[in-house]
Amino acid sequence: MKLQLALDLVSIPEGIALVREVQEYIDIVEIGTPVIIDEGLHAVRAMKAAFPSLKVLADLKVMDAGGYEVMRAAEAGADVVTVLGVAEDATIRGAVREAHDRGREILVDMIGVKDLATRAQQVDDMGVDYICVHTGYDLQAEGRRPFDDLRLLKQVVRKAKIAVAGGIKLDNMKEILSARPDVVIVGGGITNAENKLETARRMKELVQQP
Amino acid sequence: MKLQLALDLVSIPEGIALVREVQEYIDIVEIGTPVIIDEGLHAVRAMKAAFPSLKVLADLKVMDAGGYEVMRAAEAGADVVTVLGVAEDATIRGAVREAHDRGREILVDMIGVKDLATRAQQVDDMGVDYICVHTGYDLQAEGRRPFDDLRLLKQVVRKAKIAVAGGIKLDNMKEILSARPDVVIVGGGITNAENKLETARRMKELVQQP
Repeated sequence: MKLQLALDLVSIPEGIALVREVQEYIDIVEIGTPVIIDEGLHAVRAMKAAFPSLKVLADLKVMDAGGYEVMRAAEAGADVVTVLGVAEDATIRGAVREAHDRGREILVDMIGVKDLATRAQQVDDMGVDYICVHTGYDLQAEGRRPFDDLRLLKQVVRKAKIAVAGGIKLDNMKEILSARPDVVIVGGGITNAENKLETARRMKELVQQP
Repeated sequence: MKLQLALDLVSIPEGIALVREVQEYIDIVEIGTPVIIDEGLHAVRAMKAAFPSLKVLADLKVMDAGGYEVMRAAEAGADVVTVLGVAEDATIRGAVREAHDRGREILVDMIGVKDLATRAQQVDDMGVDYICVHTGYDLQAEGRRPFDDLRLLKQVVRKAKIAVAGGIKLDNMKEILSARPDVVIVGGGITNAENKLETARRMKELVQQP
């Protein structure tokens, strides 16, 4: 299992400082959608320049022009680019083709997908690298969590790796890990922790347990 | 009817030069998603600084954190912000609340929505300002156009204004206008035209015909 740190509510310098603090415990750093909206791919470029060997995910949530957007993100240094599961098949296929031509990966974010089992099988057949169950901010505010969706995905996905995001913290991480996802995505669970380094260390420890 | 110019494949200086050329004929300028992905809200800020009295739409295609993203876009000067029709109701409602608190507007982009009639009625009831039928790049490449969806929307939407986007050019504009949308969104139809000024002038003329 891998640990992904999502940076959502930080400036570029704050994000770089945060990664510098916890980098030994994280496998992938995510430039979150709010940062992309604020700063564009400049944020990806800056993070990759600061940490050339760190795997960087650009959370573009691509909905159209799949090939083009993945090309732009790859040029900026992104190793993984996100595409929405609610996007048209043509968009997801175009994104996968462009990413794989460039030796990059696609994560499909299932946020907003109504029939999760059916759509997960479809995008799995399109050759995407990761499928992510994701309870967004607006549903977290209503008390929703991604646990049940994660279990469902584990049953139906055969090829892609499985990622999970949405309100994951140290105190609910064991429940998440019991479903054996491939990637656990943590944002505020680290960035809002009083002791970020110690929190990241303990999360990494949990993620690495067999 | 209003004419909206979508800037998708330009740098910030190119976009500003383009608007300078055709501004007398356009009602709204759209900072397209590819520009947002490249440059972030800096592009909105720069356009608003260059043309303070021009209505600027930020095509964020918000999928989560509706209130927060609209706040950021409004702070950057956006008059209209786009939210995806496939987003959760909580996201759309949060976006509408934040926009209206700030005297801004929400356009819901129906790209990727499967049951267009049902969802259009739902988002109409949420008090959104515009509902947009949109054939994206990846479906345009398969020969699809938004004409039929526009007619359907005209039948079911009661309160919101109706916008249409996707491959609209001078030679197919009359067909679009016959369905009486409130906003016609043109990108490449102007930006790729040999004579951009004359094309924009003729489009504005068509849009203004009673």
